[in-house]
Amino acid sequence: MTQSIEQAIATKPTFSALKCRECGETYDLGAKHVCEDVCFGPLEVAYDYDEIRRRVTRSTIQAGPLSIWRYKDFLPVSTDNPIDVGTGMTPLVRANRLARQLGLKELYIKNDAVNMPTLSFKDRVVSVALTRARELGFTTVSCASTGNLANSTAAIAAHAGLDCCVFIPADLEAGKVLGTLIYNPTVMAVQGNYDQVNRLCSEVANTQGWGFVNINLRPYYSEGSKTLGYEVAEQLGWRLPDHIVAPLASGSLFTKIYKGFQEFVKVGLVDDKPVRFSGAQAEGCSPIAQAFKEGRDFVTPVKPNTIAKSIAIGNPADGIYALDIARKTNGNIESVTDAEVIEGMKLLAETEGIFTETAGGTTIAVLKKLVEAGKIDPDESTVVYITGNGLKTQEAVQGYIGEPFTIEPKLDSFERALERSRTLDRLEWQQVLV
Amino acid sequence: MTQSIEQAIATKPTFSALKCRECGETYDLGAKHVCEDVCFGPLEVAYDYDEIRRRVTRSTIQAGPLSIWRYKDFLPVSTDNPIDVGTGMTPLVRANRLARQLGLKELYIKNDAVNMPTLSFKDRVVSVALTRARELGFTTVSCASTGNLANSTAAIAAHAGLDCCVFIPADLEAGKVLGTLIYNPTVMAVQGNYDQVNRLCSEVANTQGWGFVNINLRPYYSEGSKTLGYEVAEQLGWRLPDHIVAPLASGSLFTKIYKGFQEFVKVGLVDDKPVRFSGAQAEGCSPIAQAFKEGRDFVTPVKPNTIAKSIAIGNPADGIYALDIARKTNGNIESVTDAEVIEGMKLLAETEGIFTETAGGTTIAVLKKLVEAGKIDPDESTVVYITGNGLKTQEAVQGYIGEPFTIEPKLDSFERALERSRTLDRLEWQQVLV
Repeated sequence: MTQSIEQAIATKPTFSALKCRECGETYDLGAKHVCEDVCFGPLEVAYDYDEIRRRVTRSTIQAGPLSIWRYKDFLPVSTDNPIDVGTGMTPLVRANRLARQLGLKELYIKNDAVNMPTLSFKDRVVSVALTRARELGFTTVSCASTGNLANSTAAIAAHAGLDCCVFIPADLEAGKVLGTLIYNPTVMAVQGNYDQVNRLCSEVANTQGWGFVNINLRPYYSEGSKTLGYEVAEQLGWRLPDHIVAPLASGSLFTKIYKGFQEFVKVGLVDDKPVRFSGAQAEGCSPIAQAFKEGRDFVTPVKPNTIAKSIAIGNPADGIYALDIARKTNGNIESVTDAEVIEGMKLLAETEGIFTETAGGTTIAVLKKLVEAGKIDPDESTVVYITGNGLKTQEAVQGYIGEPFTIEPKLDSFERALERSRTLDRLEWQQVLV
Repeated sequence: MTQSIEQAIATKPTFSALKCRECGETYDLGAKHVCEDVCFGPLEVAYDYDEIRRRVTRSTIQAGPLSIWRYKDFLPVSTDNPIDVGTGMTPLVRANRLARQLGLKELYIKNDAVNMPTLSFKDRVVSVALTRARELGFTTVSCASTGNLANSTAAIAAHAGLDCCVFIPADLEAGKVLGTLIYNPTVMAVQGNYDQVNRLCSEVANTQGWGFVNINLRPYYSEGSKTLGYEVAEQLGWRLPDHIVAPLASGSLFTKIYKGFQEFVKVGLVDDKPVRFSGAQAEGCSPIAQAFKEGRDFVTPVKPNTIAKSIAIGNPADGIYALDIARKTNGNIESVTDAEVIEGMKLLAETEGIFTETAGGTTIAVLKKLVEAGKIDPDESTVVYITGNGLKTQEAVQGYIGEPFTIEPKLDSFERALERSRTLDRLEWQQVLV
């Protein structure tokens, strides 16, 4: 009897309402994302932090599952059986070789290129969104995606037995399309850019009664990204880094890493300290970086044109909040060319053995640019967020990396090739066939 | 003082020699793999299990890192700083939807399709081999590979700052070639099948003084696969399953999962019980399955011809040991056609949201075949090993999965497509463009 009362208390949700980020108006915990009654600001989940502080310690977290659900008390789901396919707890790799190359002393890669099940940070937000979708009674889930989100929604919906229809721009990379179709959802390839896909989905959300993870379920969905803050703090031995660098698409990820750190401070899991937040965009879609450079507090939408398709959002929903965080933490927002994106992918692979997609190449290239400009101090402990896997954007590097030496299965054929590889400099033997 | 003595004891290696599997002759702990002095049998690492029993408990393991190195006392490396990029501790997923479809009660997927850093079980063996290679003083590492091993060796060598030259068959899948080249090793694409690549590498190993992970370092390397046994036992709550199904290439993985279970029993970490071992091959390269079917205790080499390239080894080094284990545990070894391999990939994706490569499709198809033949009891707790990621073998499923509906960014275009998708049966709408 006592045990069941305790259990009931322990599993009482720590969240109680949706609240407008702008005006503070509260709403019930349904599938809505906009402050319809007052100001049309974005809705966020409101938590009872006193209750979380009472309930959570470092030990309770460490005793939890090896997934994002070890932080369940910070996430907006009621069930004790969330959809858990091992998402999260990706490695925080001490990147000594990359650090040496850049002249930094303490550099870490948070490697979501190996997140489970679909190799991007989107598995975090989708695990939360689909768990919540099930709680709210949805049987069909959907999303507007630049690729990774479609992979993740289709995969986790398949695991959970939910019907699924995803929307993507028609010109996505082959690996991202196939990496969605394999799970057998309905796929709508929209002839337009992501911002057009997103607008269409907002209309569909109003007519179909589906759970769109990043539209009507967005307040729940976006909370999943906070786990990228929690995990880094835990993996650093319950402390915050000095500086983080993350890619900017809608800006949501950036703001949620910030929120994750803040919440850990608030409930006493880590000490407070200044953390600088720097953001990365590709030059071909850099509305937030442009606003940062020009000192604007508003973001002017652009038409995307870059190989970094997964972060090519021309009209970023959380752009102004990302801007605000970069400024108030004394961080920066920078952009790099597509050629630099490819160099960033190669640099990370060659120094650390991590094959990231174009978004990760963007982030590494911005890291390098910030270091060279003196905007990251060599003594700062710096964490770089790598959010997706290079096997999904193979087109981007094809033609820019080496080629194999084709040989016969004979020792002398091998020895000639080896001799050749040693006399050719790298640039030359990228082209060679023996 | 006391502490440093304890520490010195705690870090003393638990392995002391190489020992011939056939005749028992012992050798020092160098880079060798064959019983050169007596019988040419394969060498294995010999451990002091009394020492391991004294040192290791469930708690010491659980307090270790979230990687294969939590089992360091069972692995043949001396250093306290092994190469750790987060390899291992992949999810053991309870596969309820797949189980229902097949009529099983308790089915699990051990999902190494999301292993770190290169998305196959090879990251386990390579982490061990390269750590040992460094201890033995090698500065260049190499391998003969069907693809995944090349990915893993190149990536982890890059992280560790070792020079790397890998050998692959020239006809590998594009994703596997690019997924190696990105780390900038020297790649030798051999015009021949894997068995020819392997023979060439045996010659090169004798002339170049390199550490070939699966040739002269093979005794250390192959031990890494034991962690697939340890993790399953730990993740099941420190118990063994009733039945496991795993792919067979060289046969090494299969024998090492068996060894892992045996060792956990030997040192008292789990209770002893019978575990049935069943193996999976693709019909186009099924020398072990053929020997099993024909009741032979020797394996006749074949020329591979299958889309399951990563397991296409025509002359499997550990084939006879795999045969022996399947027979003495009352398991089976089955093969499936390439068409069944593709169906297996789709079945796993659609029911569990796991996108595996052709080897995993082979294993799922064999699971299905064994269930249908009554060779897996519905009441057995069964673990299926998925060893690689589908993004590396995209060619295999292209043309066999659905296609997107191409639509304009307008509500009525979407609604027409949705109507169409609902009226078309699945086979039809795989071809359709709206």
